[in-house]
Amino acid sequence: MRRATFLFRGKPEVAERWRNLFQTHAPEVDFRAWPDTGDVKDIRYIGLWDWEPSFERHFPNLEVVFSLGAGIDQFWKADLPEHLPIVRVIDDDLTQQMVEYVTFAVMAHHRELITYQTSREAQAWQPRPVRTAGERPVGVMGLGVLGSAAVERLKQLGFQCRGWSRTSRDIPEVACYSGAVGLPPFLNGCEILVCLLPLTPETEGIINARLLRQLPPGAALVNVGRGGHLVERDLLDALDSGHLSGAILDVFESEPLPPGHPLWTHPKVLMTPHVASTTRPEGVVRGVLENLRRLERGEHPLGLVDRKRGY
Amino acid sequence: MRRATFLFRGKPEVAERWRNLFQTHAPEVDFRAWPDTGDVKDIRYIGLWDWEPSFERHFPNLEVVFSLGAGIDQFWKADLPEHLPIVRVIDDDLTQQMVEYVTFAVMAHHRELITYQTSREAQAWQPRPVRTAGERPVGVMGLGVLGSAAVERLKQLGFQCRGWSRTSRDIPEVACYSGAVGLPPFLNGCEILVCLLPLTPETEGIINARLLRQLPPGAALVNVGRGGHLVERDLLDALDSGHLSGAILDVFESEPLPPGHPLWTHPKVLMTPHVASTTRPEGVVRGVLENLRRLERGEHPLGLVDRKRGY
Repeated sequence: MRRATFLFRGKPEVAERWRNLFQTHAPEVDFRAWPDTGDVKDIRYIGLWDWEPSFERHFPNLEVVFSLGAGIDQFWKADLPEHLPIVRVIDDDLTQQMVEYVTFAVMAHHRELITYQTSREAQAWQPRPVRTAGERPVGVMGLGVLGSAAVERLKQLGFQCRGWSRTSRDIPEVACYSGAVGLPPFLNGCEILVCLLPLTPETEGIINARLLRQLPPGAALVNVGRGGHLVERDLLDALDSGHLSGAILDVFESEPLPPGHPLWTHPKVLMTPHVASTTRPEGVVRGVLENLRRLERGEHPLGLVDRKRGY
Repeated sequence: MRRATFLFRGKPEVAERWRNLFQTHAPEVDFRAWPDTGDVKDIRYIGLWDWEPSFERHFPNLEVVFSLGAGIDQFWKADLPEHLPIVRVIDDDLTQQMVEYVTFAVMAHHRELITYQTSREAQAWQPRPVRTAGERPVGVMGLGVLGSAAVERLKQLGFQCRGWSRTSRDIPEVACYSGAVGLPPFLNGCEILVCLLPLTPETEGIINARLLRQLPPGAALVNVGRGGHLVERDLLDALDSGHLSGAILDVFESEPLPPGHPLWTHPKVLMTPHVASTTRPEGVVRGVLENLRRLERGEHPLGLVDRKRGY
């Protein structure tokens, strides 16, 4: 059997951590770090975050591309040849991080942090009636690996959970809706809406004025999908009109968020700089090595992307 | 048997909800709302939030006082006669609310909201490495009903948990410390410290400069005990020196927090106006009626206060 040769393309300091992890856990793999490719004909696997057009042409024996982030939307913009399998990272660590961020963001909305920050600005002591999780309906859009894990956590915390996905799902104790027909009834019961959709041509700009209008008055948004899901102008309008009470955003149409952008200063927004779930070498390498072993044994890898569906 | 006559003292609108709940769930109790006491000799039980000196002298046949908040510190300042039993509310709803607030506050510190708000002020996109709950040691001071419930939730969320209490406890998977001797080793492992102690002469001012110095650099505080636990001046110094990264406060030395108080505007503080856990008629009445039934049957009530210990 030919040796598994894996080319890593990323920051040099990250490449060093990967090299060490491969040496420890998979010394049988020939690990190389870009730009030191060695003989390009050896390269059967590549792991990277961003693709550039025609990058694959350098590697005549390339078999599989590993996308190192949770999303693969950067790949469908990049015109990769159809025959080349793309494998997403399925990494428990990424899931764990995302679940924790969603816990933070939903709890912050649930306990009305943004409303209390507004009273604090006015130095006004204004206690509001408390509601517990069982009295709070929360909805998750996107019920893939991350969305399902988030909904399980929210259930465990006692929230009234609902979920929406492209195709229908069945999750115990979760009111599941699907497709275009399911969207309005899903939305009108979401006091807190969490977006964990994959970004595809169908979901781009899905959180727009029309969708936001269907949320109940005073609803709050958490966007941890992609910036491209949200029409930021429409969100700002919905916050300013008072229809929405607040938004917690981790992703943006343009990242880093440009200086002077109104989201930097809007009082009804809390934001973090795309850190909800970040690839950390230990977790990602574990997932990649598992898939390399499967591929070398001739099995299907976990997280193989359906190129037609887009995720 | 004499009829159980219960006098409620609170806001008129709350009294009306109590009256309805008593009528529905315990029509056998003679419910009266202050100031309409009727014949004061009938009154055997009183439920109220605040005590005023000598209030009991109006009621020659008073048997038990129900304190309607979770704490009873207002009572030990009020010089109640030793023979008069005080019963605290043990109310699952109060516990649930508190656990949810602690979840919110610990997750907000865990995901570094205050640090990200500082970068946001500067419109600076500054992602920081993410850590998951399993990598984060969190400590709870006070392991009574609320503290134990909070620690169970934090365990469930995957945090490395430790607890400190006056007398020693044993909680699975929680590093338990107790007494003066246990305080320094407890504190030096708390990246997030949650105060859920009862307020007693021994715990008043316990969170002071000396205690805060024993936390690791960058630690964060959650105070959901009482304002009296925390020396606010010492907290402000610890935040300004950079030793603490942030504080989330629900209770204050003086409430409502006076206008112009530095906590209203300190950038490393998030605050709410004493809403972590609020008595709601449905939950409290359930607990009070359970205790009235026990008392009428000659049994001990739940939540009987040890006057010597102070809680």
